[in-house]
Amino acid sequence: MSQDFSEIASHLAEIGRRFYSCGWVLGTSGNFSAVLSREPLRLAITPSAVDKGQLTAGQILEIGPQGNLVGDHHGKPSDESVLHIAVVRARGAGAVLHTHSIWSTILSDLHVTEGGLTIEGYEMLKGLAGVRTHQHREWVPIVENAQDMALLAERVAGTLKEHPSSHGLLVRRHGLYTWGENLAQAKRHVEIFEFLLEAMGRTHLRPQPC
Amino acid sequence: MSQDFSEIASHLAEIGRRFYSCGWVLGTSGNFSAVLSREPLRLAITPSAVDKGQLTAGQILEIGPQGNLVGDHHGKPSDESVLHIAVVRARGAGAVLHTHSIWSTILSDLHVTEGGLTIEGYEMLKGLAGVRTHQHREWVPIVENAQDMALLAERVAGTLKEHPSSHGLLVRRHGLYTWGENLAQAKRHVEIFEFLLEAMGRTHLRPQPC
Amino acid sequence: MSQDFSEIASHLAEIGRRFYSCGWVLGTSGNFSAVLSREPLRLAITPSAVDKGQLTAGQILEIGPQGNLVGDHHGKPSDESVLHIAVVRARGAGAVLHTHSIWSTILSDLHVTEGGLTIEGYEMLKGLAGVRTHQHREWVPIVENAQDMALLAERVAGTLKEHPSSHGLLVRRHGLYTWGENLAQAKRHVEIFEFLLEAMGRTHLRPQPC
Amino acid sequence: MSQDFSEIASHLAEIGRRFYSCGWVLGTSGNFSAVLSREPLRLAITPSAVDKGQLTAGQILEIGPQGNLVGDHHGKPSDESVLHIAVVRARGAGAVLHTHSIWSTILSDLHVTEGGLTIEGYEMLKGLAGVRTHQHREWVPIVENAQDMALLAERVAGTLKEHPSSHGLLVRRHGLYTWGENLAQAKRHVEIFEFLLEAMGRTHLRPQPC
Repeated sequence: MSQDFSEIASHLAEIGRRFYSCGWVLGTSGNFSAVLSREPLRLAITPSAVDKGQLTAGQILEIGPQGNLVGDHHGKPSDESVLHIAVVRARGAGAVLHTHSIWSTILSDLHVTEGGLTIEGYEMLKGLAGVRTHQHREWVPIVENAQDMALLAERVAGTLKEHPSSHGLLVRRHGLYTWGENLAQAKRHVEIFEFLLEAMGRTHLRPQPC
Repeated sequence: MSQDFSEIASHLAEIGRRFYSCGWVLGTSGNFSAVLSREPLRLAITPSAVDKGQLTAGQILEIGPQGNLVGDHHGKPSDESVLHIAVVRARGAGAVLHTHSIWSTILSDLHVTEGGLTIEGYEMLKGLAGVRTHQHREWVPIVENAQDMALLAERVAGTLKEHPSSHGLLVRRHGLYTWGENLAQAKRHVEIFEFLLEAMGRTHLRPQPC
Repeated sequence: MSQDFSEIASHLAEIGRRFYSCGWVLGTSGNFSAVLSREPLRLAITPSAVDKGQLTAGQILEIGPQGNLVGDHHGKPSDESVLHIAVVRARGAGAVLHTHSIWSTILSDLHVTEGGLTIEGYEMLKGLAGVRTHQHREWVPIVENAQDMALLAERVAGTLKEHPSSHGLLVRRHGLYTWGENLAQAKRHVEIFEFLLEAMGRTHLRPQPC
Repeated sequence: MSQDFSEIASHLAEIGRRFYSCGWVLGTSGNFSAVLSREPLRLAITPSAVDKGQLTAGQILEIGPQGNLVGDHHGKPSDESVLHIAVVRARGAGAVLHTHSIWSTILSDLHVTEGGLTIEGYEMLKGLAGVRTHQHREWVPIVENAQDMALLAERVAGTLKEHPSSHGLLVRRHGLYTWGENLAQAKRHVEIFEFLLEAMGRTHLRPQPC
């Protein structure tokens, strides 16, 4: 399932510029990847600490199964490369997208003690792969943040195993990880989750009748 | 009243890209149609599950009175085609637009027990066809969501019959349906409702004096 | 002080497209004018009910002192032409801009019983012509809305006379009128007021400590 | 460390147009500078009272150590030039950016009695230079606003000395000052702070359980 690197790199860059304009990857935050091949495992991934509003295909790097740089690209892959690899392995994903939005940050904090939040009853849920009805209950797990990437990757892998039907997860006060069969589906999942988190957040934060 | 398909298709695509940039049709949500002819009934309509931010005229399909694909276009028409046809039949509309915005989603949920909400006293109401004063009372009915499209179309048709002067309706936790004589008027109605729902929502969700 | 019509028309169209992208003139709402000459009084003004997101210089009309169409332009001037003329006469303004934003709509409603609202202590106030310090107290009068334009123009003229130092006014649940020596200054005043009303609104609508 | 003026001027103009589109420098507010040389001190800086949405490289001015215009540019440097110079001297900054956003305005007001606010536990903090963990505690001092620029510059200088590890400061009801080694880092800091202030603001302003 090897694919054309330059086409994928262009798509990653386009998604980055789009999400930047939505305010979801400000301040060089966020990172995006797509699987180039499974055997051996190769991912196209964004470099560490670049401005997503000016992301170009030429900045995209190629990594191997330990997050190591491969091929003739120069640069430092995202620090969170191992999390992308953990998601690819756990879900068989073809693309992994990580955004830092206002609403994912707020909700990941407010619901941390419950270990996650349930989204239910929204038509928009049907935008998640395999979901056929708004009555679907989506559990979005929240994992505590960490700077030790091996530890955080382990937490993410454990959480994905524990919740095999979840389409995304939140890292506390950090942001959203979601994925898809390919970049188009992963992009759709980001938009679905960002929409639902904002709708939930604005409803949840409203004053309650006494 | 046959009109030029390619012109209408371009207009539908332009509206889709515009509404996407407003955040009203994220994640491939939303669908749009315009009447091509009445006898026999023909609609230009958006296909199922496409990214509205990249919608092109070439993706627009043509359907007949049962939502069946006609002409030499290839693709799967929106699942909600029968709702568009129900609105066209009930209102004699020339165009039907369906958006999934944050505020329509929130308000359709908060007001569901009343069966709808009244919008009254706003100058913006004058943007609705035939409304001449801000003192107009607009009743926006809310119908419960469903995945059985024939059932949902029946609910929508019944609601439209019951409220013959309403300019739009909400599907619970799903979004807004509005329409117009033509695409320009229907687009104006979307903007009017989205504005009013946001203004109502932000006012309604404010803390009340004890 | 006659000026070049086509240059002013282009500037009006550019401002309209800009404000549309800010969400301040959705649904064909809003209207904008600039003085072409004082003796005889001539204004360049937007036509009634056009989409401001696609406003072009070619759509701009020319009116005389009673709001009557003059020159060789064809179209229907904004219904609110007489309000523009009232502002030009009362303030000697060179340009008048009227927007329909979410925050001006909300605040014009919440403060209507006080007859207006005071904005004080914000650095942004210095963007209003002649204001030299953030300690300035700006009184923004609110007038009740009406569909009789002659009556509404009278209310506006009376209010401007009563509050000679105000830089703008709100029409209840309708929007903001502001003006300036020229279009650049009037545009700046719109941005200043929209910013301040949003900052005031978000602060005001927050939960109060019990 | 002399750099190419025209390149820096283009970068300043691009940042200005970008921030304008974010709504952070409406109404001619905001000002931006970058160091051209240290000995003698020379800054490229935005002129007073220009529309940042249309900022061009040709409008950028050059100033000396007292905020005096140098070189063959014509225009009036930003009134806040002395604040930029104070920040450059106190921090050795290569660029200083000042924005007027809704959330910095609101939070600078709500937290003024505490003299500042702490931001802690957010992944986005890692976008601040030298910060390696989300557990970082960032103290954002708030200084009272003033129109006497020499006085305000003194306050800013005193505050920077008192809080040597702060990456930015707020002027009450006025806005954010932040800086960086160069324009790219200073732009990143603006985005980081604007994001964090919005996330804090929306969380803080939510209704509290009774």
